[in-house]
Amino acid sequence: MEQVLSYLDQNKDRYLAELKDFLAIPSVSTNPDNKPDVQRCAQWVADQMTTVGLQNVQVMPTAGHPVVYADWLNAAGAPTVLLYGHYDVQPPEPLELWTSPPFEATIRNENLYARGAADDKGQVYIHLKSIEAFLKDGGSLPVNLKLLIEGEEEIGSEHLVPFVTEHKEMLNADLVLISDSSMFAKGVPSICYALRGLAYMQIDLVGPNKDLHSGSFGGSVHNPIQALSEIIAQLHDKNGKVTIPDFYKAVRALSKKERDAFKKLPWSDKKYAKELGVAQLYGEKGFSSLERVWARPTLECNGIWGGFTGEGAKTVLPSKASAKISMRLVPDQKSDKIAKLFEKHIKKIAPKTVSVTVRNLHGGEAAITPIDSPGVMAAVAALEKGFGKKPLYQREGGSIPIVVQFKEILGLDTVLLGFGLPDENAHAPDEFINLDNFFGGMRTSAHFFAELPRFMSGKGRK
Amino acid sequence: MEQVLSYLDQNKDRYLAELKDFLAIPSVSTNPDNKPDVQRCAQWVADQMTTVGLQNVQVMPTAGHPVVYADWLNAAGAPTVLLYGHYDVQPPEPLELWTSPPFEATIRNENLYARGAADDKGQVYIHLKSIEAFLKDGGSLPVNLKLLIEGEEEIGSEHLVPFVTEHKEMLNADLVLISDSSMFAKGVPSICYALRGLAYMQIDLVGPNKDLHSGSFGGSVHNPIQALSEIIAQLHDKNGKVTIPDFYKAVRALSKKERDAFKKLPWSDKKYAKELGVAQLYGEKGFSSLERVWARPTLECNGIWGGFTGEGAKTVLPSKASAKISMRLVPDQKSDKIAKLFEKHIKKIAPKTVSVTVRNLHGGEAAITPIDSPGVMAAVAALEKGFGKKPLYQREGGSIPIVVQFKEILGLDTVLLGFGLPDENAHAPDEFINLDNFFGGMRTSAHFFAELPRFMSGKGRK
Repeated sequence: MEQVLSYLDQNKDRYLAELKDFLAIPSVSTNPDNKPDVQRCAQWVADQMTTVGLQNVQVMPTAGHPVVYADWLNAAGAPTVLLYGHYDVQPPEPLELWTSPPFEATIRNENLYARGAADDKGQVYIHLKSIEAFLKDGGSLPVNLKLLIEGEEEIGSEHLVPFVTEHKEMLNADLVLISDSSMFAKGVPSICYALRGLAYMQIDLVGPNKDLHSGSFGGSVHNPIQALSEIIAQLHDKNGKVTIPDFYKAVRALSKKERDAFKKLPWSDKKYAKELGVAQLYGEKGFSSLERVWARPTLECNGIWGGFTGEGAKTVLPSKASAKISMRLVPDQKSDKIAKLFEKHIKKIAPKTVSVTVRNLHGGEAAITPIDSPGVMAAVAALEKGFGKKPLYQREGGSIPIVVQFKEILGLDTVLLGFGLPDENAHAPDEFINLDNFFGGMRTSAHFFAELPRFMSGKGRK
Repeated sequence: MEQVLSYLDQNKDRYLAELKDFLAIPSVSTNPDNKPDVQRCAQWVADQMTTVGLQNVQVMPTAGHPVVYADWLNAAGAPTVLLYGHYDVQPPEPLELWTSPPFEATIRNENLYARGAADDKGQVYIHLKSIEAFLKDGGSLPVNLKLLIEGEEEIGSEHLVPFVTEHKEMLNADLVLISDSSMFAKGVPSICYALRGLAYMQIDLVGPNKDLHSGSFGGSVHNPIQALSEIIAQLHDKNGKVTIPDFYKAVRALSKKERDAFKKLPWSDKKYAKELGVAQLYGEKGFSSLERVWARPTLECNGIWGGFTGEGAKTVLPSKASAKISMRLVPDQKSDKIAKLFEKHIKKIAPKTVSVTVRNLHGGEAAITPIDSPGVMAAVAALEKGFGKKPLYQREGGSIPIVVQFKEILGLDTVLLGFGLPDENAHAPDEFINLDNFFGGMRTSAHFFAELPRFMSGKGRK
């Protein structure tokens, strides 16, 4: 283990240079123009896998972007870890808000800035380098490893589910390890035990059958922007609760133990509001900010558009207006069920003056993993060794739908070992990964592989 | 008058031939390539003015396209009419949608098709020929006339306002006559006596100081799209009334005579809704559709934007959301005053969770020439004689900024004598003027000049 750790320490500069190459590939999965880049990125990952000493490396086609697989299965009797990550990234727009170009990784203030630095190329790369530290010069890993790195996480992992279903045998393991989340705060390593689910919808309203002159027609037909605003305004009540009937029906209440645990975390609403630049926070009455984000379902407008949006004044009464609205879900809400409740409610409250279409763009279930499972306990031990500090327990407000799929298809629990930071700007301009977390993450990854067999022995093995 | 009318009747073929020459000049003011054509067109108008017997004909340069001026001031003691029109046209594109070439005037189904046929060359030409009928063989007009034909109406008349301001004395008159609009319907001559004004605003909301991940932050801060929607939803009450305090305070109520006059117009809400493709109309309770569009102030969302608006799903909680909102105004609302009321109200109702900026992008006053004013009464008498049918009264929901400028700079009311049709395709392919309206318009123009002195005598003169 000493050799592994000192190897990691000695190769820092090379790791940063290699990571920059990885981050330079604009593997934006949602943009058809970037399809060749996504393909090129898959090949880059495969080449790295071969370089670090993994075996059976394959770029495996799907109906969408390819999955990259590799394994190392020579630790007889040791547990098998299925390491999942993704090499695709969110679109970089709006480009003008980036301090340095999104695909030219740049270090400032001990952070490495680039699209994908934290979500998730940087965190995939952390494990590749800890694997390299074990396997170099014909070395060996303390566990068996299977790596599954996909290219469609940012667009809903549409083709990964059939892929996993078709390759159940190949992907068989004892647990799933994912590093695609954040620790609680800088210097506060934490282990995340629950994720929210998602139901992502689009509403399209049509009023008049063409754009009209707002002078000649204004006042006689319902403006679709106004109608859409009226619909959106009805989706929360004055206590910040979502008004969709039965929306909260299946929500698993927080235990007193969980609420108490959250209260132990270093947190200040005042500081949080200041960091976000808002004079006042907003949310569901009766819950703290952390509870709202981690353990309560919410409804957010992700986008809205309609009419004239350029410079100056155009007197149009538009034909159409649209919004993207997503709901974050908690155990035991079901994404499809919530999407149906949403659609039903929108159609009920939409006025007859417009026609409305509701589409379910994508979804995923919430997940929760017991904090006394062997994988989580090994992760806690590894974090303490990797960062020199006992980690805290937390949840995460975001979604990783594949966690639910791994449970449903492979029967595996997932350990979420997050090396990002809450302010890392994932999905936004100036995304970054902190360099302490990057290198601490590599040490933690190595310790996790070393610790797991101990916690796994005699229990939790399939 | 008999001679004038029979002259008009006898020269129909020549008029059509001359008009075709006028329409053949592609005087597209917005296209720099057409600058020589615009200049040539100004000269064509000037030559026509000379030919028909007008005096002091001048092509007057501006910082943009020239203004053409002429007068005839020999009717001692009679009122003076300032006739305004424009010789520039909209671009003809998309060319492939024209049945016959836009600059080769073609008659089909009793309509003359060409760019500018109705807007506004055809209507300018109507008056030139009625003037010719009076002035031929050393004849005289019943009124004094000043003609002001500009070349930048289709690009915002940027240089006309300074021109009018600099030539106040030259343009001094008793009223303005404009033929650049439509009658209510084919076979339904009408006189338009009022226009709405405008206050065009932009609201910019900022919530968090950057785009956030909607999973990691959703539920803890007020989404600016949601906040903007909540603001917009509050701007109308359930009766379709604008909720801004004092918004209706200065509104001049419709008289019973006006409401009765509107009811005489051939109108079907059902047909209107069907043409617009809406299942149900919308508007301020207690008013008909025509009243809502013509005589009531309204508030319309012209554009809205915020967050992710591309294909697919991006889970962003955006930092910003914006809307363009304009209000159509009626006498005696003032644009600046309404803009201030709007800004005050928005700032009052905006929640403390976001910061809001309100900007006044532009505005213009409403205009009204009372139906019992001499100019309107003369126009009504002229239309009845010109078309053999009592005209109906109408208003227009849009704005004609130059009407407001003539009122503000020269202190003159405007008579709007429109010979176009609502379906004339102004600004679109297959623009046309109906031949009945073209020749009826010439007779009406002649009658207007003949009738005006009678209605004007003793009142309304400066």
